[in-house]
Amino acid sequence: MAYGIRPQPGKKVKLGDIDPNMNGGLDRGKGEEKVLELTKELGDLQELLYSAGTHSLLVILQGIDTSGKDGTIRSVFREANPQGTRVVPFKVPTPLEKSHDFLWRIHQQVPERGIVTVFNRSHYEDVLVARVHELVPKSIWSLRYEHINDFEQALAENNTLILKFFLHISKDEQEERLLAREREVEKAWKLSAADWVERRSWDKYITAYEDAIQRCNAKNAPWIIVPANRKWFRNVVVAEAIVDLLRPYREVWLEALADRGRSELEAIRAARGERG
Amino acid sequence: MAYGIRPQPGKKVKLGDIDPNMNGGLDRGKGEEKVLELTKELGDLQELLYSAGTHSLLVILQGIDTSGKDGTIRSVFREANPQGTRVVPFKVPTPLEKSHDFLWRIHQQVPERGIVTVFNRSHYEDVLVARVHELVPKSIWSLRYEHINDFEQALAENNTLILKFFLHISKDEQEERLLAREREVEKAWKLSAADWVERRSWDKYITAYEDAIQRCNAKNAPWIIVPANRKWFRNVVVAEAIVDLLRPYREVWLEALADRGRSELEAIRAARGERG
Repeated sequence: MAYGIRPQPGKKVKLGDIDPNMNGGLDRGKGEEKVLELTKELGDLQELLYSAGTHSLLVILQGIDTSGKDGTIRSVFREANPQGTRVVPFKVPTPLEKSHDFLWRIHQQVPERGIVTVFNRSHYEDVLVARVHELVPKSIWSLRYEHINDFEQALAENNTLILKFFLHISKDEQEERLLAREREVEKAWKLSAADWVERRSWDKYITAYEDAIQRCNAKNAPWIIVPANRKWFRNVVVAEAIVDLLRPYREVWLEALADRGRSELEAIRAARGERG
Repeated sequence: MAYGIRPQPGKKVKLGDIDPNMNGGLDRGKGEEKVLELTKELGDLQELLYSAGTHSLLVILQGIDTSGKDGTIRSVFREANPQGTRVVPFKVPTPLEKSHDFLWRIHQQVPERGIVTVFNRSHYEDVLVARVHELVPKSIWSLRYEHINDFEQALAENNTLILKFFLHISKDEQEERLLAREREVEKAWKLSAADWVERRSWDKYITAYEDAIQRCNAKNAPWIIVPANRKWFRNVVVAEAIVDLLRPYREVWLEALADRGRSELEAIRAARGERG
């Protein structure tokens, strides 16, 4: 069963209709068990993807401040081998990055074959924060949806598997999480006065997300909306979607590896003057 | 207790005198327990290093083919958060890389503050394979030891903590590992006819390693020789050395985080018009 919400390509998305508290009929205990199983399988599949070297995986994580992007990475990729897994956080663009088109810095970080790359924020910020705060005029940001679609399409047609997650929390949940950080001294360093300022633009962000999800939602680069008020359920949804995407490749990758093994063995035997 | 062998800076190293079978008086069960404890602590320290953002860590793994560099990474960094941990494998240089000085591609991959980077092979290949196979004349490679020392010194003086590991296996152990790969179909893809050819240069590699370890062994960028015939003991040695290096920074990093937390809280309260 697929727990994430997958809007149909092109269909209008109303985030207000999706309950961030959803739990898929699971309780916390069952959910955490499921995450352990899924992350183990994800670790195995990542190792195979790495060894086979025929495909890459790009996971894009988006969500409003405190929606749990860091926590998702920590939990979902706990069994992935750091050799072969790359996490790229995108921050405010540097002057050099700003002097290029918005996809320039992104393109440099996409995974080569064999690699799993996780984007913590991404080129979607260029139709989110850039739109909400009018960092560029509408005449510019409105063209970007097609740029993004063309770019992702080219990656997908070059053996990059793509999944895009929107971590969906409620406005109340965000307030609670921000206040929790203020109460816990060890978490306070994660605070920023800017978070409360950003919160005032909540509705504008939601609209911008709805548009991005609607306009950039291809079959081979789909969005998955993740009810994320419950952290354990969020982890189930993300881990499951990745495993579901990779699992059908298991046999293909094993076969590719066996082929390679056979031809290396032949080369070694030939070098030794043995006959097969 | 420190299980790795740390040659004194400048002192001559005789690898033949170091037993690759050493186990530090541990058995496998105790060793594996120790690795679990150490990797947990390493995970915590990596998280702190990441959050504090004042230092970086560069771990360099070197060793003859099959000495277990990949396996070490998988085991020792199992609790590290992939966000903040980067593994960089260095392969045969590309034409572009070859058209630069040998440190050019290396410098691009060193960790920025907050990041742990593991080099799977490194600039040391330029005084190892390059020397053994005379890819460049002696007049060139013999200058590189000083280039390396100067380079590592500059990194160390810019808050990069550096550890360099030589995974030390015996020639018999290598033969066993290569033959094991031939017997196991699932491992055969890791084979390369070149491994057996390289093996013929075993003694030359050992001499080249001894020189590199002697000539590039600074107090703030030390070599640790890791008896690596037993994989579990190898993991103990590497994990322990990293944890020992990072542990003294724990309090420094916690304090840096607390400071940042306090000043963010103040900024938030000021923005709200509250008084501290």
